[in-house]
Amino acid sequence: MSEAERGRILFAATGTDTDLWVDILGQTGREVTVEPDGAQDPSIHYAVVWRQPQSILNRLPNLKAIFSLGAGVDHVLNDPTLPDLPIVRVVSENLTQYMVEYVVWRVMDHHRRGGEYRAAQAVGEWKEFDQPVSSGVSVGFMGLGELGGSAARALAPLGFKLNGWSRRRAAVEGVTTFAGPDELQPFLSETDILVVLLPLTAGTHGIIDYRVLSSLRRDNLIGGAVLINAGRGGLQKEADILRALEDGSLKEASLDVFEVEPLPAASPLWTHPRVFITPHAAAPSDPREVVRPMLAQMDSYDRGEPLQHLVDRAAGY
Amino acid sequence: MSEAERGRILFAATGTDTDLWVDILGQTGREVTVEPDGAQDPSIHYAVVWRQPQSILNRLPNLKAIFSLGAGVDHVLNDPTLPDLPIVRVVSENLTQYMVEYVVWRVMDHHRRGGEYRAAQAVGEWKEFDQPVSSGVSVGFMGLGELGGSAARALAPLGFKLNGWSRRRAAVEGVTTFAGPDELQPFLSETDILVVLLPLTAGTHGIIDYRVLSSLRRDNLIGGAVLINAGRGGLQKEADILRALEDGSLKEASLDVFEVEPLPAASPLWTHPRVFITPHAAAPSDPREVVRPMLAQMDSYDRGEPLQHLVDRAAGY
Ligand SMILES: NC(=O)c1ccc[n+]([C@@H]2O[C@H](COP(=O)([O-])OP(=O)(O)OC[C@H]3O[C@@H](n4cnc5c(N)ncnc54)[C@H](OP(=O)(O)O)[C@@H]3O)[C@@H](O)[C@H]2O)c1
Ligand SMILES: NC(=O)c1ccc[n+]([C@@H]2O[C@H](COP(=O)([O-])OP(=O)(O)OC[C@H]3O[C@@H](n4cnc5c(N)ncnc54)[C@H](OP(=O)(O)O)[C@@H]3O)[C@@H](O)[C@H]2O)c1
Repeated sequence: MSEAERGRILFAATGTDTDLWVDILGQTGREVTVEPDGAQDPSIHYAVVWRQPQSILNRLPNLKAIFSLGAGVDHVLNDPTLPDLPIVRVVSENLTQYMVEYVVWRVMDHHRRGGEYRAAQAVGEWKEFDQPVSSGVSVGFMGLGELGGSAARALAPLGFKLNGWSRRRAAVEGVTTFAGPDELQPFLSETDILVVLLPLTAGTHGIIDYRVLSSLRRDNLIGGAVLINAGRGGLQKEADILRALEDGSLKEASLDVFEVEPLPAASPLWTHPRVFITPHAAAPSDPREVVRPMLAQMDSYDRGEPLQHLVDRAAGY
Repeated sequence: MSEAERGRILFAATGTDTDLWVDILGQTGREVTVEPDGAQDPSIHYAVVWRQPQSILNRLPNLKAIFSLGAGVDHVLNDPTLPDLPIVRVVSENLTQYMVEYVVWRVMDHHRRGGEYRAAQAVGEWKEFDQPVSSGVSVGFMGLGELGGSAARALAPLGFKLNGWSRRRAAVEGVTTFAGPDELQPFLSETDILVVLLPLTAGTHGIIDYRVLSSLRRDNLIGGAVLINAGRGGLQKEADILRALEDGSLKEASLDVFEVEPLPAASPLWTHPRVFITPHAAAPSDPREVVRPMLAQMDSYDRGEPLQHLVDRAAGY
């Protein structure tokens, strides 16, 4: 197939390093543009996007598929004029590995009472805190997909009790699974450390509210319930997190995502002594890792083969 | 065997919860005392000790074996009048699990740049740090015994490159092994995060000095070399750790053990921004877990069976 026949790639993203992505996308023979040539550019066959400006994609008459830069696609679907085309998300060993590491890191720090030891050190206090081994602590995953499932599998050999909650019932070895709204309460009441790895959809927006947080098992061996959210900020109600921290429903939180990003300077989360903040850095999409499979999918789709990792647009993820 | 024939247990420990240990030791039929009846008490057959007062054990004419409360025995051997009897140390799944968790916790926190993220949060800075996945980072163990070997095996599925150094050559799957003084330098030069789980002996005293610390690979993907010591404080030269932190040989340290414990209030380690301190709490000996196997060993030794987990007194561990 000639260059012209293969069609061009539109790169349309905000809040990311456009030059780096375009550079790597362009190293493989397909022409890449960040500006369509005219309103209805027929030479563009694929779009690679992250929080793309609205109403650009619907003007491309020969667009065949849309690739998200990330694992989540809420930012893609945000555009009401989005054409009805296949949407491909990132599923990459590298990204999954980052998330697994983030979850192990945060779970271990809460489990081993990192916050309390840092506070003791700050006042020069030589003090040992009660410590169960991991088999006395349960970690519950909201979202047991590529990322939640992989993180649970990584925690299993470390000895934690594991619970998982998803839309449809899942089967993950070593994990007690719960499904759907009816089983959310029993899931929460058996969970000490809650790890949120849901996609942001109409069904999950604001799901991490006071009711959920106050349903966690706080009478446990690590001094209270813990929230870890590395899904999306839109899943959580930050006012409810603060309320739950204040009244003891929640002991600590590790948050990688926020209702508004970057987290505004005025947010009380920044200075809360029991909140740990990372800047949406749990599992970055590394262009050196995720571009090659994207381009391979474009080539195979051109040859008539099916796309992998397609988004279910009705479900929203 | 009657109570009298089985003999009594002497519990002789400083710096631990004597009442709790004696209570649990006493729940199993063998009589326990913390004070010998007279200078040469013939009714005592076993001693359970932790930093025992000097010159008590050598006065017991019918003592058969000495049990350490912990995995290490430097505190037992410290007594120059120690009789030449078998010394049994603690090897327990529970204690090993604690140490594995401590090591995973500290390695993940240094690997994922916990210190830098906490410092950024403290000044309200939304900033992402360069982050390799674990396969770009090597963790090296000094000491590949029960604890070092188990911790290495737990890190392997998380993806780290693993090195290990011991006295005799070891074989641990997934770990590149080095042995003896001649191979210390090559081991260190390929190690980003050094985990020390050696026993304290004549051969290891003060081994963690400036030469060792400045031989670690500091030009790595996590911003510098890291020390984690959960072995014994006597292994490290704290002045050298501070020097290495100051001149950039070392980026950060997690220390669970110290030359003097509790760590004196005047130690600059307390307030060093790149040092994380825990109060010799990495892997406690839980009497509810380790007493039962001790008593079982006393019974089987009385029946003429050999003792397990014996210390090699010449080697010092
Ligand atoms: N912080 C970061 O750096 C970062 C990086 C990458 C991704 N993420 C976030 O992580 C999310 C998860 O990624 P993934 O690859 O694991 O997605 P995935 O494979 O699609 O898994 C999503 C999981 O959430 C469950 N779920 C969806 N809607 C639900 C609902 N209404 N009720 C209960 N469960 C529901 C799904 O249930 P079923 O199994 O029944 O479908 C599935 O278990 C992404 O959408 C993205 O927002 C964050
Ligand atoms: N911080 C805490 O809470 C805590 C809790 C428990 C134990 N500890 C400490 O952890 C230490 C290790 O425990 P463990 O059960 O793993 O002991 P272990 O099974 O006896 O293993 C000791 C390891 O150190 C190596 N080693 C000893 N002397 C050496 C030397 N001169 N040069 C090089 N390598 C040497 C041994 O080599 P070989 O394999 O060749 O013999 C072995 O690999 C204990 O001695 C104790 O001090 C600390």
